[in-house]
Amino acid sequence: MNLEAADRIKLLVLDVDGVLTDGRLWFGADGEALKVFHVRDGAGIKALQSAGVAVAIISGRESPAVARRAAELGIRHVRQGAQDKAAALGALLRDTGVPATLTACVGDDTPDLAIMALVALPIAVADAHPSVLAAAHHVTRLGGGAGAVREICDLLIEART
Amino acid sequence: MNLEAADRIKLLVLDVDGVLTDGRLWFGADGEALKVFHVRDGAGIKALQSAGVAVAIISGRESPAVARRAAELGIRHVRQGAQDKAAALGALLRDTGVPATLTACVGDDTPDLAIMALVALPIAVADAHPSVLAAAHHVTRLGGGAGAVREICDLLIEART
Amino acid sequence: MNLEAADRIKLLVLDVDGVLTDGRLWFGADGEALKVFHVRDGAGIKALQSAGVAVAIISGRESPAVARRAAELGIRHVRQGAQDKAAALGALLRDTGVPATLTACVGDDTPDLAIMALVALPIAVADAHPSVLAAAHHVTRLGGGAGAVREICDLLIEART
Amino acid sequence: MNLEAADRIKLLVLDVDGVLTDGRLWFGADGEALKVFHVRDGAGIKALQSAGVAVAIISGRESPAVARRAAELGIRHVRQGAQDKAAALGALLRDTGVPATLTACVGDDTPDLAIMALVALPIAVADAHPSVLAAAHHVTRLGGGAGAVREICDLLIEART
Repeated sequence: MNLEAADRIKLLVLDVDGVLTDGRLWFGADGEALKVFHVRDGAGIKALQSAGVAVAIISGRESPAVARRAAELGIRHVRQGAQDKAAALGALLRDTGVPATLTACVGDDTPDLAIMALVALPIAVADAHPSVLAAAHHVTRLGGGAGAVREICDLLIEART
Repeated sequence: MNLEAADRIKLLVLDVDGVLTDGRLWFGADGEALKVFHVRDGAGIKALQSAGVAVAIISGRESPAVARRAAELGIRHVRQGAQDKAAALGALLRDTGVPATLTACVGDDTPDLAIMALVALPIAVADAHPSVLAAAHHVTRLGGGAGAVREICDLLIEART
Repeated sequence: MNLEAADRIKLLVLDVDGVLTDGRLWFGADGEALKVFHVRDGAGIKALQSAGVAVAIISGRESPAVARRAAELGIRHVRQGAQDKAAALGALLRDTGVPATLTACVGDDTPDLAIMALVALPIAVADAHPSVLAAAHHVTRLGGGAGAVREICDLLIEART
Repeated sequence: MNLEAADRIKLLVLDVDGVLTDGRLWFGADGEALKVFHVRDGAGIKALQSAGVAVAIISGRESPAVARRAAELGIRHVRQGAQDKAAALGALLRDTGVPATLTACVGDDTPDLAIMALVALPIAVADAHPSVLAAAHHVTRLGGGAGAVREICDLLIEART
């Protein structure tokens, strides 16, 4: 565990499926129908933003439910359908003006490794893929969609005080 | 664990997300679509009301599913969309005529702390946020949405006999 | 554990919520919207019927999803909205011509106790209410909605051979 | 555990309910309404196909959600509503031109035993029925719908390198 960058973080980048959700995809006859978020993650994201840390979403999939949840939480930087997550991160850092050295990200699977290699504080959820667990500087106690993001928000807020 | 107030409780105040549910928020394209309650919590709530204890709901979110479930269980005091939970509790105590010294509440997260500090018996679900676990006089064995509320109903009924 | 009646059972009576499901109630804006069954329970129910044991459902709630699932599994005796479960069992025994001494039932909560007291083999799911666990002659290893009913079907089939 | 065939596998045959899902069947008023897949299984299936192993689905049930998810993942061989799974496997092997000696399959319940007996590498998910666990040459660490398929994809890719 290496959390030395935690007190400087100005931007937290979140994956959706497997991080803000438990990785389950709810399909109906017309494709993906629901996304299942966690209420305690939302309270943490709002508290973290109030503490002066920006929160952003980069997701490989695309879903109106993500846009709705992000709007509810005041997350303005939402990049869905990102085939190239490293490129999406680059654009995000330009938009926000926050350097990678002040950025943390949370991932659960191999597509997140490209982002995790670029930021100061790469974090894995407890139930992440083994390759992501190995690449992370910190692993949460809780699983994706079960409060892992809240855990990280609390940790970043505490590190700043 | 401090349950000395249990035998005097006349009012049980419940949070919704994370207490009557497991904290998961089911989002569709139009926002929150479903709430997931537990059948055994419902049986406990009905039994507790029959035993002479009033049950009320105070929730920061707002959902027609909560109104439906509350109606089914005969819960008349339902305050949704409560931004200030302490104020909602004050209004509830005035409406019911029950003093805070005869009131228990169940919470899972930091917005519930304002209520928990005011009542005689503050309770946390097993999977509550650490700050809520620390503030509670009692912690349930089961998690929110998985029978935690039933556990409390049984406990309050037993304390009265 | 007391399974001496298992080899004579001619009728298995199942509760729905908490037995064929994990007890979660999925509410939308118009009330209950979904029931979640387990595929392996279904395979067990079909195998048990093929082995000559009738299967019936007695539920206190009422849901078209239950009727659909029962039809799919060939369960003809379905009594939903049963406020008085003992009365529903009496009517079921008359309809099927099977005596209570050749009947097993599976329950998870206090409303099932009235049925459990009447049949030869009362069974509780692993996560049943404490009062139901205490009243059961057998407790499954798996929880309701997670394969508990399959476990019982396998056990009854094996006992007959 | 017997994985000696893993490096030769050219075709992976997957069951749906209990393997690509956790076995739960989501019923609404009109019958089955949703299937719940796992995002990390999907990433594994795509990686396995890129590594030159074909992936196919044989399911006893029938659902448009399965067709949608299969299309998203580029799975061309999908046989739903297969009452006779061994016959469905025979047709699949003819269509793909892959012999059973180069085929793996993943199952969770007794209807899968007919397929498992025919292929070189029969695999069970962690929470499979006891008869399937007994028949498997390999049992996954994770349960169906919770990443079991990803585990197998990783294993087959690793075995080829």
